[in-house]
Amino acid sequence: MPEHAPTPVADALVDFALGLDLGSLPAAVTEAAVLCLTDWVGAALRGSTEPLADALDAVVGAAGGEPQATVVGRGRRTSALLAALTNGAQGHALDFDDTHLPSIVHGSAPVAPAVLAIAEWRRRPGAAALEAFVAGFEVETRIGRVIGPTLAERGWHVTAVLGHFGAAVAAGKLLALTAEQLGRALGIAGTQAAGLEQSLGTMSKPLHPGKAAMNGLLAALLAREGFTGPTGILDARPGLPGTFLGVTDLRPALDDLGQRFEILENSTKLYAACHLLHATIDAGRAIRERAAPAPEAIAAVECRVHPLAVKVAAIPEPRTGLEAKFSAAYCAALALTRGEAGESEFTDTAASDPALAGLAARVHAVADPALGIPEARMRVRLRDGRELDEVVRAARGTPGRPVSRQDVEEKFRRLAGIVLPAAQVGRLLEALRRLPELPDVGALAALTCKEGRP
Amino acid sequence: MPEHAPTPVADALVDFALGLDLGSLPAAVTEAAVLCLTDWVGAALRGSTEPLADALDAVVGAAGGEPQATVVGRGRRTSALLAALTNGAQGHALDFDDTHLPSIVHGSAPVAPAVLAIAEWRRRPGAAALEAFVAGFEVETRIGRVIGPTLAERGWHVTAVLGHFGAAVAAGKLLALTAEQLGRALGIAGTQAAGLEQSLGTMSKPLHPGKAAMNGLLAALLAREGFTGPTGILDARPGLPGTFLGVTDLRPALDDLGQRFEILENSTKLYAACHLLHATIDAGRAIRERAAPAPEAIAAVECRVHPLAVKVAAIPEPRTGLEAKFSAAYCAALALTRGEAGESEFTDTAASDPALAGLAARVHAVADPALGIPEARMRVRLRDGRELDEVVRAARGTPGRPVSRQDVEEKFRRLAGIVLPAAQVGRLLEALRRLPELPDVGALAALTCKEGRP
Repeated sequence: MPEHAPTPVADALVDFALGLDLGSLPAAVTEAAVLCLTDWVGAALRGSTEPLADALDAVVGAAGGEPQATVVGRGRRTSALLAALTNGAQGHALDFDDTHLPSIVHGSAPVAPAVLAIAEWRRRPGAAALEAFVAGFEVETRIGRVIGPTLAERGWHVTAVLGHFGAAVAAGKLLALTAEQLGRALGIAGTQAAGLEQSLGTMSKPLHPGKAAMNGLLAALLAREGFTGPTGILDARPGLPGTFLGVTDLRPALDDLGQRFEILENSTKLYAACHLLHATIDAGRAIRERAAPAPEAIAAVECRVHPLAVKVAAIPEPRTGLEAKFSAAYCAALALTRGEAGESEFTDTAASDPALAGLAARVHAVADPALGIPEARMRVRLRDGRELDEVVRAARGTPGRPVSRQDVEEKFRRLAGIVLPAAQVGRLLEALRRLPELPDVGALAALTCKEGRP
Repeated sequence: MPEHAPTPVADALVDFALGLDLGSLPAAVTEAAVLCLTDWVGAALRGSTEPLADALDAVVGAAGGEPQATVVGRGRRTSALLAALTNGAQGHALDFDDTHLPSIVHGSAPVAPAVLAIAEWRRRPGAAALEAFVAGFEVETRIGRVIGPTLAERGWHVTAVLGHFGAAVAAGKLLALTAEQLGRALGIAGTQAAGLEQSLGTMSKPLHPGKAAMNGLLAALLAREGFTGPTGILDARPGLPGTFLGVTDLRPALDDLGQRFEILENSTKLYAACHLLHATIDAGRAIRERAAPAPEAIAAVECRVHPLAVKVAAIPEPRTGLEAKFSAAYCAALALTRGEAGESEFTDTAASDPALAGLAARVHAVADPALGIPEARMRVRLRDGRELDEVVRAARGTPGRPVSRQDVEEKFRRLAGIVLPAAQVGRLLEALRRLPELPDVGALAALTCKEGRP
């Protein structure tokens, strides 16, 4: 039986996850984890007002469950499993959460909801939640660095598939599984791993990290009760990589394990658009800041971008807010004229502003294979013949120009403020800041809903 | 957006499913569906005593939920979602449930638990449950006829993956979804589709149909609340077949839709061994019946079988009951000496019987490409020089020699009798017989647990 075949990759990841403790983590890693969780809670709060959250709430409410964990922003407590499902979908509802670009994994999306649900249920301290979060984040992005791009090419939603491992590891660590149990949890999680890119543009895309969180948590809970799963899922042939992609060796996922942290290469969105357009927005903002050209003075705009941006994010005449997020022309026009690119610039109303559409029609996006995803070049030709040129080498929020705590907290205040009263936003932010010392994550979870509810 | 691309396969399956009604179904189809459900309830009852059911019960019990549906044999009522999960795993726990060989889909395994959970929750009549069951069974096995064998070759557990569609269709029909909603439910289900053959030999294999049932039900519930999903999952490129397998055209799944019923080509297990060994067991039983050779009189046994049986079901010296189910030698020895091959012949104790092991050591399995899965040939050479020969062209329970109602009911009584008192087994069987006229499936569900519980 495959149970007895050697499983070096799974064993190393399990040992790493169970051994990880806050005391020996680099301070930068802990800080990055706190900012990830802060950013994710903001996204999940804002996501709680989306139609997708209403649909989930109706289904989850009808199913019922023990009041173990809070649905962020909704004032509902339900089982950890269903809270993880709903929060996972809410956190990714706007595609405004973080992305680990080398693996194409939205790192927090599947892990944070699993961590929050169990930590609240089991009244675990913030330090334990952070340890579990880092463990899950590292495992999914390390596997993703090896097979993420190939998964995406084949039509898989990488976050959906690999988030199962992140959530299982985080949940397993918080539930204090043994190494043997956690190895089995990886198998039980991996055999549930799913999610197609075909879902892009529908509510099923944000459902993916919710499902990954719930499935990973289920895997850990079952493993703790003696449930068995395929321990060879990361090592055996075919295993998951073999079945999904043909034979692939996952051993490179172990390179510098425990020495180098993927979370330090995470990207945080400060603009509500597709990550591929952030460098373009930075370029437009820079030109606006130094020259502030009037829209009617602009004859033409050339945006040179990573080729993938032309492939998936160059909708020429967006008709909805969602389409605007994937429109290089719209984003360039927006940055040049308003300088802002937050959620309120990507509503259906904003997208139908004729002034923006007029300028967007004069924007031309050009694929430039010499540019990386965090890079862009913008050339604005004015009607008077002058040219304004801007080169961006690292978009704000990418590792080359990482977000500051202040950036993240400003974004958090804006998103959370839509759902919660200002004073409570402040208290919640304070609890997130104190996460490494927080004695009980339940206190934080309670602050994610309007006080008095639930 | 892919929403507007033509989706002829999904549309036709949705129309077929929603239009299907018991009044216009051939009587043989209704009878086959009743027998499938009877057989599945028996398997799920027996599965409720397995360690896997204890683990699930602990997790499901902790999560809690509204008492919408019954966990078969366990005396627990919980949400329809979690009941579907648990019952789905229990029904497949022993691998003793039915198989649609052309698609390699255990047809009832993911569909029956979804149907039972919703029909009980919504107090729907037996006729509605049967209509939903047939619709789900046909959709998953029709898709499976096109891509099932290729999925299996690649390392997917076909029942796990395609069961998502069966469960979503059955659940959607019982929940009276519109055609548009059911189309979306197919997408929401398909983007959750998962399950690796790597799980074989672990509890995660039976978990698969449980997850398929729960995920399919979740898809239907969400679609009813306006949740959106990728409607092109069966038609678009890549869609599910493209991403899982490379480009595949699913239009052949529509051949003779509504005219030919896959459920009439279903196979029912009357022996508790791997389906690939049933013809061998029939051959051994036939020789025993006509000649009853004493084990010590047998010099050697040659079993000619379908090559797949040599590949996956020829463990030479099984040490456990589970291994014995995948041992041609053990099964041949068992059939020749005892003539029985029920659950009690595949316990760990039975598998370690030295008399059986002695004879099994003289059995030789030979791959014969001329034989189909339901076929086998056995040659017994006696020490006195005589030869006993038997050719089986259609194993009992396969379409060429279909089970009778009596066969199914005998098996049901044996399995159900392990959990329920004899009188209650009789009442439950009576309710299953009357399914087409039963006013409320809840009455049937209540009979699956010892009276007084829950």
